[in-house]
Amino acid sequence: MKIVVDAMGGDLAPKEIVLGSLDALVADKDLTVVLVGDVDKINPILQEEKYDKARVELVDAKDVISNDESPTMAIKTKKESSLVKAFDYLMANEDAEGFVSAGSTGAVLVGAFMKVGRIKGVSRPALAPILPTAKGNGVVLCDCGANVDCKAVNLLHFALMGRAYAQAMLDVEEPRIALLSNGVEDHKGNELCHEAFELLKAEEGINFVGNCEARDILSGDYDLIVCDGFNGNIALKSAEGAATTIIGELKKGVYGGGLRAKLGGLLLKPTLKGVMKRMDYNAHGGACFLGVNKVVVKSHGASKRKSICASILQAKSLAVHKTPENIKQAIQQKAAVEE
Amino acid sequence: MKIVVDAMGGDLAPKEIVLGSLDALVADKDLTVVLVGDVDKINPILQEEKYDKARVELVDAKDVISNDESPTMAIKTKKESSLVKAFDYLMANEDAEGFVSAGSTGAVLVGAFMKVGRIKGVSRPALAPILPTAKGNGVVLCDCGANVDCKAVNLLHFALMGRAYAQAMLDVEEPRIALLSNGVEDHKGNELCHEAFELLKAEEGINFVGNCEARDILSGDYDLIVCDGFNGNIALKSAEGAATTIIGELKKGVYGGGLRAKLGGLLLKPTLKGVMKRMDYNAHGGACFLGVNKVVVKSHGASKRKSICASILQAKSLAVHKTPENIKQAIQQKAAVEE
Repeated sequence: MKIVVDAMGGDLAPKEIVLGSLDALVADKDLTVVLVGDVDKINPILQEEKYDKARVELVDAKDVISNDESPTMAIKTKKESSLVKAFDYLMANEDAEGFVSAGSTGAVLVGAFMKVGRIKGVSRPALAPILPTAKGNGVVLCDCGANVDCKAVNLLHFALMGRAYAQAMLDVEEPRIALLSNGVEDHKGNELCHEAFELLKAEEGINFVGNCEARDILSGDYDLIVCDGFNGNIALKSAEGAATTIIGELKKGVYGGGLRAKLGGLLLKPTLKGVMKRMDYNAHGGACFLGVNKVVVKSHGASKRKSICASILQAKSLAVHKTPENIKQAIQQKAAVEE
Repeated sequence: MKIVVDAMGGDLAPKEIVLGSLDALVADKDLTVVLVGDVDKINPILQEEKYDKARVELVDAKDVISNDESPTMAIKTKKESSLVKAFDYLMANEDAEGFVSAGSTGAVLVGAFMKVGRIKGVSRPALAPILPTAKGNGVVLCDCGANVDCKAVNLLHFALMGRAYAQAMLDVEEPRIALLSNGVEDHKGNELCHEAFELLKAEEGINFVGNCEARDILSGDYDLIVCDGFNGNIALKSAEGAATTIIGELKKGVYGGGLRAKLGGLLLKPTLKGVMKRMDYNAHGGACFLGVNKVVVKSHGASKRKSICASILQAKSLAVHKTPENIKQAIQQKAAVEE
């Protein structure tokens, strides 16, 4: 199976993107990667490495879309950019079943929407990362930023799409689906929550377990948490901010402390590193853009080879599980019931 | 100055509430506390302690409002509850200038709204905690849960009220006010954000610095962050959840680790405790309910004596700074300009 990689997207492109792609080839023998980007920059990196040349395709693209550009404008006008050419390749080749980019989130979303296309019946595609939890399983957060203003029906679709995604990635048959709210009681929430709650409760064939507080997102008690993209962004970033602050304070305490603190810090370093690694959701792959016709994975902008490798394997796994088709089916079944 | 304390509100009431009140008397010689609650339960606690009897008033109240009750119903019908009697005392006595409760948040807010009354012109009172930041200053988050559905004008009022609050508590002349959004750029945000952004930008005499990402709430770069109560709740709880998870993982790493991890954990314990203490916003007092006619502080439900003491001192400080009057003035000046 072919996974198309935007080799020029991301803060550490193209080097870490190319190296991560080669790592993915080692990890999965059934994989071919299509590196789209400036071959004059990609080739020197490849030349330093040993890899199975038959499983790397190169597509030259001299232009790059940056984070500062208007996404819609850039997708429309930069035909020679690595992102646009990667999407074009994805859609022109049936055996290309997945796509990975660490480039501008806005441009990836707009590009996926315009080039890959929305699955018929999906009201709004949504961006969904998988977060690590205290129990060691993962939890899907959907939407985490693609749609800042939502209606209840959008949230219902996020639940159906996120369910197919969780089934593929988390190895759970019937994901426990919760609605993000300001309390666990059924009556909690704002207007949007109340409406979405009723829709989710009425939806047959899903395992809706009720409201979930933001405090419990990482508890491991849920497999999928549904929310609008604005709140998803707030929840995700707030958790990140708190984690960064605590680790920063801990470091300050160690470096600014006496001999005891310094020694303790030194001894505990591997443990702390392990915790950070387990809790770093970026290391486990990217966020999937659910609701478009092929698998699109957005890797973090600061992705290193490890994240890129994880994102590529994730894209392949979603393609193997036929997640876009499953989403299509779920949405169309729903539409059929309503008719 | 008298501060009225709901002695029966909170998971650890009445003992920790009473002890915290006595601690506040030691910390501030100008303070009198009015303990409202079941005297048969309060007196045995007082009898074990040494304190200035002239500065403790007791008001007997045999009933208690629990977390499970409907707030509006409870406030209306439970006339003999500690919460209702405490509010009644607050409003009947001019020298009672502040109120503290660790009881049901809903009941405290409804009670404050109904008994203390909204300041004329304030569209919505709001709940505002002060969070510790990485730079050691504090940041006010307003609203963090009182209003789940807001209009832009509510957010503008949150800014004016939060400004007066930050001036009193954070010792800053002109607080840096930011709007919580899904990115720092001016165009980021949902519909509500866009409208509120324009209102805040147009407001003269405040220091509006633009949008703030949830990742940077604790950065120390802002003194006041304005948002609707639903988003504020998500931001606050998500940060709490992340902090709890990281500390939990760290503990797991230490206890489940080898000798090195255990020794490191032992040596680092005081440092970690110090960090947790600095970052525990509950220890620094409560959340103030801004926009009502007198100072109302909601202390965390699990408050121990230290938090209660801090909340009482905070209530006094807000009364000394005449924060309710300052809010009244700010809102009325605004109304006058608009006429």
